[in-house]
Amino acid sequence: MPEERVIARGLVDNLGLPGTTFTVKYGDGQQLVEEEDIQSVDVAVDKLIHELKHLHIIEDYHEIGGVGHRVVAGGETFKASSVIGPKELDQIEALSELAPLHNPPEAKGIRAFMQVLPDTPEVGVFDTAYHTTIPEMNYLYSIPMQYYRDFGLRKYGAHGTSIRYVVTHTAKMLHKPMSELNLIVMHMGSGVSVTAVKNGASYDTSMGYTPVSGVTMSTRSGDVDPSLVAMLMKKLQLTDPDDVIKILNTESGVFGISELSPDMRKVEETRTTRHQSQLAIDIFVNRMVKYVAGYITELGHVDGLVFTAGMGEGDGAMRQRIIDGLRVFGVRMHEDRNNDVRPEDTDLTADGSTMKVLLLPTDEELMIARDVMELTK
Amino acid sequence: MPEERVIARGLVDNLGLPGTTFTVKYGDGQQLVEEEDIQSVDVAVDKLIHELKHLHIIEDYHEIGGVGHRVVAGGETFKASSVIGPKELDQIEALSELAPLHNPPEAKGIRAFMQVLPDTPEVGVFDTAYHTTIPEMNYLYSIPMQYYRDFGLRKYGAHGTSIRYVVTHTAKMLHKPMSELNLIVMHMGSGVSVTAVKNGASYDTSMGYTPVSGVTMSTRSGDVDPSLVAMLMKKLQLTDPDDVIKILNTESGVFGISELSPDMRKVEETRTTRHQSQLAIDIFVNRMVKYVAGYITELGHVDGLVFTAGMGEGDGAMRQRIIDGLRVFGVRMHEDRNNDVRPEDTDLTADGSTMKVLLLPTDEELMIARDVMELTK
Repeated sequence: MPEERVIARGLVDNLGLPGTTFTVKYGDGQQLVEEEDIQSVDVAVDKLIHELKHLHIIEDYHEIGGVGHRVVAGGETFKASSVIGPKELDQIEALSELAPLHNPPEAKGIRAFMQVLPDTPEVGVFDTAYHTTIPEMNYLYSIPMQYYRDFGLRKYGAHGTSIRYVVTHTAKMLHKPMSELNLIVMHMGSGVSVTAVKNGASYDTSMGYTPVSGVTMSTRSGDVDPSLVAMLMKKLQLTDPDDVIKILNTESGVFGISELSPDMRKVEETRTTRHQSQLAIDIFVNRMVKYVAGYITELGHVDGLVFTAGMGEGDGAMRQRIIDGLRVFGVRMHEDRNNDVRPEDTDLTADGSTMKVLLLPTDEELMIARDVMELTK
Repeated sequence: MPEERVIARGLVDNLGLPGTTFTVKYGDGQQLVEEEDIQSVDVAVDKLIHELKHLHIIEDYHEIGGVGHRVVAGGETFKASSVIGPKELDQIEALSELAPLHNPPEAKGIRAFMQVLPDTPEVGVFDTAYHTTIPEMNYLYSIPMQYYRDFGLRKYGAHGTSIRYVVTHTAKMLHKPMSELNLIVMHMGSGVSVTAVKNGASYDTSMGYTPVSGVTMSTRSGDVDPSLVAMLMKKLQLTDPDDVIKILNTESGVFGISELSPDMRKVEETRTTRHQSQLAIDIFVNRMVKYVAGYITELGHVDGLVFTAGMGEGDGAMRQRIIDGLRVFGVRMHEDRNNDVRPEDTDLTADGSTMKVLLLPTDEELMIARDVMELTK
């Protein structure tokens, strides 16, 4: 930074399990891959810091100006990326209920870096922060208000870091200040969300209290009648409601409908021969179209529809189906350009379209790096 | 019939509870009101049949050509109104799981009439029947397909009899065959639903497996993240998920948000002085607008937006807010006509509107009577 150049990237996979893989890619295609059981975050962080110097990626720890941490749930506490001290670390842990699988290990990671690099600032970048501008009309559920006050039951959304990156870049691409930009951002990865952006800020988003709701996803159900939770508990003779929530998170969506795969590419390959594959595609497109339509209507004026993340960047047929489904709004996509495009910033708008159609690869890590840079200046 | 004239109407209120009220209105404003504990449906039906003759509403039981029964849940079994014999009665009871509070007493009522009037046909008119034309893309949830096959977990919808009445009348009003009519029907009573009508048939509807989902209602939550069910069970230390579903049905919606009343009129009266009253209105309108927008988009072409039932017929301010929220579609309402209108068939469309805006009072009982007439000819 500030050149925004990646000097190394790496991954510790299967942490705490047998056969942990420790990977660092650096320099001109050099790579370190080690398979070795790593039992804890502390050991992994120690090893990482050691290898950075050992591989001459850095020569001195003082070259590290800050460490950025993606944190899934910032609740109503963190409205923006923040330097994390002991107090903030406690707050992240206190928000664990909103992301029980994510916040606790993320807090551990931050603590580990604090110990090895005590003089280096830690920065938390919260996936929910971008959505804290959503007005209460849209973040409240129509449930007794007491449950919002007492338990924080409300819409928090997700994918915020990705969406913020995309909105920033769209502003540049359209030569318009971010604060004057109304967009619909379709983040289509294995998790899928639709976000209405008003004057550059999140105004509404399809994911809710948790990322299970909204549109159909690869293994997540999206919206269902809440009565299904009660009915499935009875039918499957389950006593823990979380067992049903797990089904809705991991066995549903495109996988549940197609009974084939959570991977849309596999579903797409078989759509002409398998009814349930075509059905999964139809349902996915239908739910996307209805959410986008609701958000366009709610915003009143929209500058552009933006596709991002895995499927959004890579699946031209799916983009085409969604835009076709929205034809009532007069939005048109350039078909040839859509078919030929590589995943890079591209204007896909056809002549005469009422709004822009854009492809914008997301880069959450760059967004995190920028926030670290900004907060540690 | 066939003049469609009401010769008597009545009600047995608080059946099986202390202080049952038995009311019959007939003739030129004559009325019989009796307070007397009535313990069972059989006794109530016996009494009704007796009073019809005793009050000279009829002179002979053979004047009754058929008895119509509203049945809430017809599942996938009843795709239209049907003459009910012993087999059909068993089927209605077998569908009780879909409407545990409604189907069992309805079956009892039918059985009671069969006993007192053994030669008179009974006709079941199912609230779900109109929605059996919804394509699988829209009635399936994105959950493992096995749960649809094994347990019938799908969208069934509700308000079908009302919507069918309204669609029939709209066709007459617009001088268009029902089979060429695309409409959005907003049934806004204490239960509220939005239905997309394509070529005269139901194509999508906001209520789901049960009537709790969809838009915000007077005491029902409408759509919520299903994780809320699990979280509320934990927070409130409940072991029966139905206790949470009950909260979502009876303590939520406009009542839950406003913390004042489930009655929109009371909420409306206080909206300038109470933040939560205005908020409940804003949320209700917002959810209506998003559903209607999704359905207009899904249908592609829409002839008209139709308001019906209590609030839809009586609340001009709410109609105006919803139509205003849909301005992106170029739909416009005649403001003066909307303010002055009485609850009767009225075209509220303003000049230059892209689709009709109609007020159409519903009449489920007339629809039932017509079905009885048709099926007993």
